[in-house]
Amino acid sequence: MRIALAQVNSTVGALEANTDLVIEQMRAAEAAGADVVAFPELVISGYPPEDLLLKDHFLTKAWASLLRVAEANQRVCALVGVPMAHGSAVYNAVAVLCGGRLQGTYRKICLPNYAVFDEKRYFTPGDRTGILDLGGTHIGLNICEDIWEPGGPTVVAARDGDARVVVNLSMSPYHVGKGREREVMLAERARDAGCYVVYVNGVGGQDELVFDGQSLVFAPDGSLVARARQFEEQLLLVDLDLDRAMPDAAEFDAIRATAPSAGGSSSAQDVGRCDAAGCRLEIITVDQPARTSVTPLPVGGPAGSGDTVPPDECAVAACLSVEAEVYGALCLGTRDYVRKNRFQQVVMGISGGIDSALTACIAADAIGKDMVNAVSMPSRYSSTGTKTDARDTAERLGVNFKEIPIETIYGAYLDTLAPHFGQAQPGVTEQNIQARIRGNILMALSNKFGYLVLTTGNKSEMAVGYATLYGDMAGGFAVLKDVPKTLVYRLAAYRNSLGPAEGPIPQATIDRAPSAELAADQTDQDTLPPYDLLDRIIEDYVVDDASVDEIVASGVDRGEVQRVVGMIDGNEYKRRQAAPGVRITPKAFGKDRRLPITNRYRG
Amino acid sequence: MRIALAQVNSTVGALEANTDLVIEQMRAAEAAGADVVAFPELVISGYPPEDLLLKDHFLTKAWASLLRVAEANQRVCALVGVPMAHGSAVYNAVAVLCGGRLQGTYRKICLPNYAVFDEKRYFTPGDRTGILDLGGTHIGLNICEDIWEPGGPTVVAARDGDARVVVNLSMSPYHVGKGREREVMLAERARDAGCYVVYVNGVGGQDELVFDGQSLVFAPDGSLVARARQFEEQLLLVDLDLDRAMPDAAEFDAIRATAPSAGGSSSAQDVGRCDAAGCRLEIITVDQPARTSVTPLPVGGPAGSGDTVPPDECAVAACLSVEAEVYGALCLGTRDYVRKNRFQQVVMGISGGIDSALTACIAADAIGKDMVNAVSMPSRYSSTGTKTDARDTAERLGVNFKEIPIETIYGAYLDTLAPHFGQAQPGVTEQNIQARIRGNILMALSNKFGYLVLTTGNKSEMAVGYATLYGDMAGGFAVLKDVPKTLVYRLAAYRNSLGPAEGPIPQATIDRAPSAELAADQTDQDTLPPYDLLDRIIEDYVVDDASVDEIVASGVDRGEVQRVVGMIDGNEYKRRQAAPGVRITPKAFGKDRRLPITNRYRG
Repeated sequence: MRIALAQVNSTVGALEANTDLVIEQMRAAEAAGADVVAFPELVISGYPPEDLLLKDHFLTKAWASLLRVAEANQRVCALVGVPMAHGSAVYNAVAVLCGGRLQGTYRKICLPNYAVFDEKRYFTPGDRTGILDLGGTHIGLNICEDIWEPGGPTVVAARDGDARVVVNLSMSPYHVGKGREREVMLAERARDAGCYVVYVNGVGGQDELVFDGQSLVFAPDGSLVARARQFEEQLLLVDLDLDRAMPDAAEFDAIRATAPSAGGSSSAQDVGRCDAAGCRLEIITVDQPARTSVTPLPVGGPAGSGDTVPPDECAVAACLSVEAEVYGALCLGTRDYVRKNRFQQVVMGISGGIDSALTACIAADAIGKDMVNAVSMPSRYSSTGTKTDARDTAERLGVNFKEIPIETIYGAYLDTLAPHFGQAQPGVTEQNIQARIRGNILMALSNKFGYLVLTTGNKSEMAVGYATLYGDMAGGFAVLKDVPKTLVYRLAAYRNSLGPAEGPIPQATIDRAPSAELAADQTDQDTLPPYDLLDRIIEDYVVDDASVDEIVASGVDRGEVQRVVGMIDGNEYKRRQAAPGVRITPKAFGKDRRLPITNRYRG
Repeated sequence: MRIALAQVNSTVGALEANTDLVIEQMRAAEAAGADVVAFPELVISGYPPEDLLLKDHFLTKAWASLLRVAEANQRVCALVGVPMAHGSAVYNAVAVLCGGRLQGTYRKICLPNYAVFDEKRYFTPGDRTGILDLGGTHIGLNICEDIWEPGGPTVVAARDGDARVVVNLSMSPYHVGKGREREVMLAERARDAGCYVVYVNGVGGQDELVFDGQSLVFAPDGSLVARARQFEEQLLLVDLDLDRAMPDAAEFDAIRATAPSAGGSSSAQDVGRCDAAGCRLEIITVDQPARTSVTPLPVGGPAGSGDTVPPDECAVAACLSVEAEVYGALCLGTRDYVRKNRFQQVVMGISGGIDSALTACIAADAIGKDMVNAVSMPSRYSSTGTKTDARDTAERLGVNFKEIPIETIYGAYLDTLAPHFGQAQPGVTEQNIQARIRGNILMALSNKFGYLVLTTGNKSEMAVGYATLYGDMAGGFAVLKDVPKTLVYRLAAYRNSLGPAEGPIPQATIDRAPSAELAADQTDQDTLPPYDLLDRIIEDYVVDDASVDEIVASGVDRGEVQRVVGMIDGNEYKRRQAAPGVRITPKAFGKDRRLPITNRYRG
């Protein structure tokens, strides 16, 4: 059996464009002799469609789009993700299209409702194990979370439905290490089910999420058969040998007994269980005409679109370094936010510091240097060194550059406000005024020329509120929002290693002590702990939900922990008004972490 | 049986303070001779605690707080809402405290996961119908959503558990008309179950939500027995006559058969069902010592704390006019956001327009006129009329007033930016610069003096993006965020009717055509449809999720609908960075309406 994994980049709400894309890839798969072509979860609507799913007219139009795919269908059996309204219920479904007709559907059983997921807000869980009988060969169908359940729909499809291959349609958001998690899980699932697992993941950026592709095929023995590229679209073709013997019933029972919690949840947060065992079997029988003879797939050929990709030495692990992978995710997330929101150019402040330098690199690599406008906005507190470095970075990258000093405007604010400030000493207020002047200038350029404003703050700053609301936080997309400062340094070194020459970021920018330059002789460490310590506390408190006592027990000074935790809790109001940015960790600020602003708990 | 409804205002995360409040009210109920005192849902943690529930240490401390209440308990049987960790599951529970001990718990069965609710993110549903046997009298226990289910836990408790009274602990967020919905539903539920229904709702503001109190008692015949005050704390005492005969089994079956969807959901969006019928019965038996004789409750007395409130002529309906009720909600929401976030004073721009005038009224009424700082920031485009009206409103209200003209600063921006704007004509960019100068000034006063900045925009503006991000949208709390412009006018008239004299808002402010005054001779209607039409389209498209075609079919010009819908969809990015504000409609911008920013759907 030849199967095509259509790792495509669809856009939320773009029903027509997504449908065109599906039809185009379906035809390419047909032309390549595929028996089956599988698309990502909800490819017709884009993922996640969020509250679009509450609009009846959206669901109606999505279904009409699916029927357009069915009309365009020929021999190949297409598995297409689509939201499906049925009575008052809505399902997250796979439509089976074959011979120009809709042959049946499978409806997702396990609905994730934790972290960034809200699927129980929208969907009713399916209650049937889905099997596609394709000329006598049984193919299990399931969707994303379904396959993460040990002993769940995948094993049930193999055991009760005699599936020789299980195809999973996914939209699995990226974070560092997710690729490895997926591969370990899929290898285990293939072994448990004793069948091939074909995992089709989407690719592309959607607001804060990046879907990284890396679609996968695992053999029944848990070995990796093929892996699609990360962060790029690809139509991956794989020939499967389905004649291998399945485990018998006793072996299945033994496997199910070893599952951590049969029928239970793979995530501690996913408190709603999905009950695969209680589902009845539904077999969608399709008589597919025999295919005409096709050329065997090349093995080990170049990884061009439509080629097979054999596993390489980094099987069951991420192929790229953390830095290369995160950099790729940031570029894709930024490019897609710009492109899908129909912007052409971006504008950003460039200070001579490392955050804005790295942001400029990502922007230039994501959308092209000519599309990036970097603006240096020096004040009385800007050093010659940073001013020079700002210009130098822009020149090395080849992005557009402007210098707009803020001194005149700052003076006008101080004059205007002096009568109202009375005897109060200059301090944070005056610092914030400068940052907000810069925000206003960038927004003015945005308004005048239609640029998207990129903000340059990192996760460490976002965590403790070391940023000015409506100042450096002003903008439409926050490229480094989920990148801790220590990782910013690693990414800068990585990007410089790509060149040309010694790379775009001046060594002075990397070596200089970080400073907001909003007051004389200021450095970040006047106010914050060293960044390696800060990032460790943030990781413990934000990502792992550790308590102050637990962090102290791990060897950090109590006063320091309390100070940082107090800053994190006290700045929820700022984060709530922050621009979206690319999620690269298991817990980003945003939909991932929903804390009240009004919150007296300190713990 | 004497029951006390402790309609209290707890604060999210304030475990210690909430516990103190519960103990104080429990003692007051004991002193008043109550047999039972019931508190709102999750009173120990505050509601909704959101991702605090993912912190083990928070759950541990919340449970320790509950045990402190148990220790302070004497004779009265206290029903206390608390999050309850049990293994890896977390429940939304009622703890039954009596005789100084924890006697048992009931765990919420029906978990709302629609609109502003995310309870399936946090909680495992309970699987037992809860009955408290208090010296032979059976009391059904349930929590909020449980009682909204026709044929759900309430009816099951009465039928299978022989409950003579069902006590429901709620935190039911306010919107216009919610009071009437609740009363109609509770009357029906009492009749269906053939027992008393005691509904204890919390009161207070929490970020965007306002809980309005109005706790209720209904008799088995569906008649209203008592109603607590709206928007205020109260300990309401009611004597129940529990000797009435219950319906027999056949009658119950008939009632259940008429339920719209037995065991189903009361909300189309609540796709996860709650299965009350499948729950087993759990009876918590408590031998309560006989109470010493107590004074009978007065009937028809003044509605002071601890008094009974007999139903009046507005039974099964809201008692207040829409305007009075919304005004009350806005005051409570604003007061609690200020107070619970430990602010003393607020600062706001006052323009001479109706939105800022109304916001100033609400602020003054909510936290006291001396705590309100209104700042007029005229530009070259401000008319004498609006400048006069701004000052006049502030004077009539008695709030602090400053005038800070922005002309000098605006000139400095224009000079600085002129070389970069080239030949481009002045337009929206220059308008936004002015609004952002004002935002910067208010934030500077906030930073310097610790004031909370209130924003003054209304829902109509938020919907279509007729507001400047980081300009008039800059601030910590958006008082009118969910108030359509047409309702702003009605609220202004209502507030003026309260006086003194002709009221705080000048007639000229009410009569003048709305204008942002950011360009010469500008009015809102240069850009927007008339507000009555705009608000109608917003209601249809945002609140009811109607399609363009449906709105056109209702008689609105297609071009106008498409233009407005395009503005609504295209401004999601602005709303995502808006301050929180009081929710007063069934669908506010915020947690209620979760649309992607990147979204190509237009429908």
